[in-house]
Amino acid sequence: MTKRIAVIGAGPSGLAVLRAFESARKAGADVPEMVCYEKQSNWGGLWNYTWRTGLDEFGEPVHGSMYRYLWSNGPKECLEFADYSFEEHFGRPIPSYPPRAVLHDYIAGRVERSGVRQYCKFNHAVRDVDFDAATDKFSVTVTDLVAQQRFTEEFDYVFVCNGHFSTPNVPYFEGVEKFLGRVLHAHDFRCADEFAGKHVLMIGSSYSAEDIATQCHKYGAARITFSYRTKPMGFEWPEGFEEKPLLTKVVGRTCYFKDGSTADDVDAIVFCTGYQNHYPFLPDHLKLVTRTSLYPGNLYKGIFWEQNPKLMYVGAQDQFYTFNMFDAQAWYARDVVLGRITLPDYDTMHADSEAWVARNGQLENAEQMIDFQTDYVRDLLAATDYPHLDVDTVARLFKEWEHHKAEGILTYRDRAYRSVITGTMAPSHHTTWMKAMDDSLEAFLNQPGQQAAE
Amino acid sequence: MTKRIAVIGAGPSGLAVLRAFESARKAGADVPEMVCYEKQSNWGGLWNYTWRTGLDEFGEPVHGSMYRYLWSNGPKECLEFADYSFEEHFGRPIPSYPPRAVLHDYIAGRVERSGVRQYCKFNHAVRDVDFDAATDKFSVTVTDLVAQQRFTEEFDYVFVCNGHFSTPNVPYFEGVEKFLGRVLHAHDFRCADEFAGKHVLMIGSSYSAEDIATQCHKYGAARITFSYRTKPMGFEWPEGFEEKPLLTKVVGRTCYFKDGSTADDVDAIVFCTGYQNHYPFLPDHLKLVTRTSLYPGNLYKGIFWEQNPKLMYVGAQDQFYTFNMFDAQAWYARDVVLGRITLPDYDTMHADSEAWVARNGQLENAEQMIDFQTDYVRDLLAATDYPHLDVDTVARLFKEWEHHKAEGILTYRDRAYRSVITGTMAPSHHTTWMKAMDDSLEAFLNQPGQQAAE
Repeated sequence: MTKRIAVIGAGPSGLAVLRAFESARKAGADVPEMVCYEKQSNWGGLWNYTWRTGLDEFGEPVHGSMYRYLWSNGPKECLEFADYSFEEHFGRPIPSYPPRAVLHDYIAGRVERSGVRQYCKFNHAVRDVDFDAATDKFSVTVTDLVAQQRFTEEFDYVFVCNGHFSTPNVPYFEGVEKFLGRVLHAHDFRCADEFAGKHVLMIGSSYSAEDIATQCHKYGAARITFSYRTKPMGFEWPEGFEEKPLLTKVVGRTCYFKDGSTADDVDAIVFCTGYQNHYPFLPDHLKLVTRTSLYPGNLYKGIFWEQNPKLMYVGAQDQFYTFNMFDAQAWYARDVVLGRITLPDYDTMHADSEAWVARNGQLENAEQMIDFQTDYVRDLLAATDYPHLDVDTVARLFKEWEHHKAEGILTYRDRAYRSVITGTMAPSHHTTWMKAMDDSLEAFLNQPGQQAAE
Repeated sequence: MTKRIAVIGAGPSGLAVLRAFESARKAGADVPEMVCYEKQSNWGGLWNYTWRTGLDEFGEPVHGSMYRYLWSNGPKECLEFADYSFEEHFGRPIPSYPPRAVLHDYIAGRVERSGVRQYCKFNHAVRDVDFDAATDKFSVTVTDLVAQQRFTEEFDYVFVCNGHFSTPNVPYFEGVEKFLGRVLHAHDFRCADEFAGKHVLMIGSSYSAEDIATQCHKYGAARITFSYRTKPMGFEWPEGFEEKPLLTKVVGRTCYFKDGSTADDVDAIVFCTGYQNHYPFLPDHLKLVTRTSLYPGNLYKGIFWEQNPKLMYVGAQDQFYTFNMFDAQAWYARDVVLGRITLPDYDTMHADSEAWVARNGQLENAEQMIDFQTDYVRDLLAATDYPHLDVDTVARLFKEWEHHKAEGILTYRDRAYRSVITGTMAPSHHTTWMKAMDDSLEAFLNQPGQQAAE
């Protein structure tokens, strides 16, 4: 009897799984039947922009955390698929830091061409997963959101690919409930324009804080105050920016910080306080419980739920590497499902993951983290037929990118890098990022002297 | 063996159920064991204010839809419990339109004194309910949000009391995804202050639209435009207010309406487009599917799920009557569970509810709707030992309230009414509503010449 695979989520991770199996199928392998349940009405995960916040039209939590005017915050050369280059997709080289719509087009293009849309059930929310040891099957309970009907199907394997940048982490600060302005988490940030002329407090010191702040600045915010828990980001901020230690309380529109200083006349507080790994559809015995981490425990190869390795997580770790790491994971998991790779016993798996977890615990800076994840991806890639990816060069690009950011938080997106896949140098963008106000695919691709992509 | 009851939700409806059984227990009846699962950290349902929007600290959809500065939009005399008057709770008469905190205090006071907190499991989200015909039991699967553990328990009866003003209904309008300002649903509205000086578009013409608009006006909004689907509300609005037909599209910050007119320089769009009855934890065979309605179908007496009347809904209908109607439902349902009332067969139940549904379909105006729900409540009350409630007088108050609103949308909250329970006339508030900027319990109760409540 044909084996069956459930993939939960059709974002970059879930699509990598579909693509991995489809690529084996096209090469003649006998692959299981696949069903991918996606809550949204289309694929792309976070890259599938939505104007909605909070709950969607079906009352489900909105998946999307991306905002208008979001541009890649890392070079596209670091995330390029080894089996599908940007040049192949767009028919020509494009600049290194594309806006969201361009990356969505790229992700979708690969899977559209590979014909995996047939496996996707959109507007389907997974409610429950369980495992029956007697039958060795998972039962997956799903709501068809359009028909408003619930059903349960059986599967031999389940891939958890629902992402972990959708469920906001929102700590409480004294007095925030009486703040006389807007309070939101980065998850609900959409349109920088509405903060023009405003004084915005960003709580946090990671990607969301730095990027939402620079977006707000670009679109006219008057003043930005950051509040950090451990240490300031330390970029050379433009005028009107200030970094403060942790918020201690809010009174009216005044914010108080740990060093006794204050920020007055704050109009909005944006919680850039990260996200939670959130799997409400999983029972405790299958559920990964972790904070955002480069190597969550109990996942062999960062993928296999050691207690029951027919349950696999893709993209569950924190990420320097993204699309191509999801591919490396998907190809590896596929080869396990196809019997090309045999998993060791529980003790061996657990000892292996514990060693990675221990090494992760020792990392002290971004360079070490980049090397760590590079080693992780390299290890996965060595075991499968995924096309060659020169991870040492990708690691070097990541480090250059970190340096370029340190040199200029408002200018790093004007840099260009050489593709690791095709060897082609990216062109510079026609407009510097600070002046590129239109983030549409059309505006981006309308590179002087080049034709727009079809 | 002792029967077991699960109550889903500790808002006014769920608390009415706990109170109904507790009252029978104190009178010597042998009542089932009760467990009330509440997602929030305290009871009160919507009346338990939260500053959070979207998802809560556990990644669960935020239940609260109430905002700061929310005052009752109907006289407290229409919702007073027959077994616990406002005068008893506060030790003296209080004005007719209390702010949220005062009503929360009143609801909580009754249940606190009746000792039902012991039955409540806070921070517990119900994930799934199922029914096993073989054992005649419900299984209820719950996540303890603090411990992050899931468990399943068996019950003989389930009360669905999760409310239906928490899951926003948010239709799409052309161009809204590119609107250059803030877009939110009333569910996420919290702080009127942030709209001071702004031009706000309210889509909708019911309670949320009228009340959020007047709140924004009270706290300094520059301009309010309403957009209605069927007909304008027609109140005598202050200067700067305008009613337009349905929104057709949004371009930049300009909104276009069905009559060809526009509203320019809109800063924020508030969807006052209602809520969905949303029961993601129920399987299809137990799930009420309805739009907001004074009499959803398939519920005998507006309570019993006719296909399986051991599943009961409290407060699932649209409401003129609130707290005291939930009591009437809870007392009736309790008496069925205790065997004091015997339910007829399915056909009889269904014919009865269909007659109510048909009558509801004929209602043409607010007065008829008030009479309809009055008859419904009267019917329930006649069957139980709930203390006498003179619903004809309540109905008269509802109609007076409608007239008072029509006479002055900004002044109706300055009116006072006589308690149906105690016969005492309410005092006038010390400040007219438009000038009462502080909505705290302390400010409200600090009535000149009176003592604050203990």
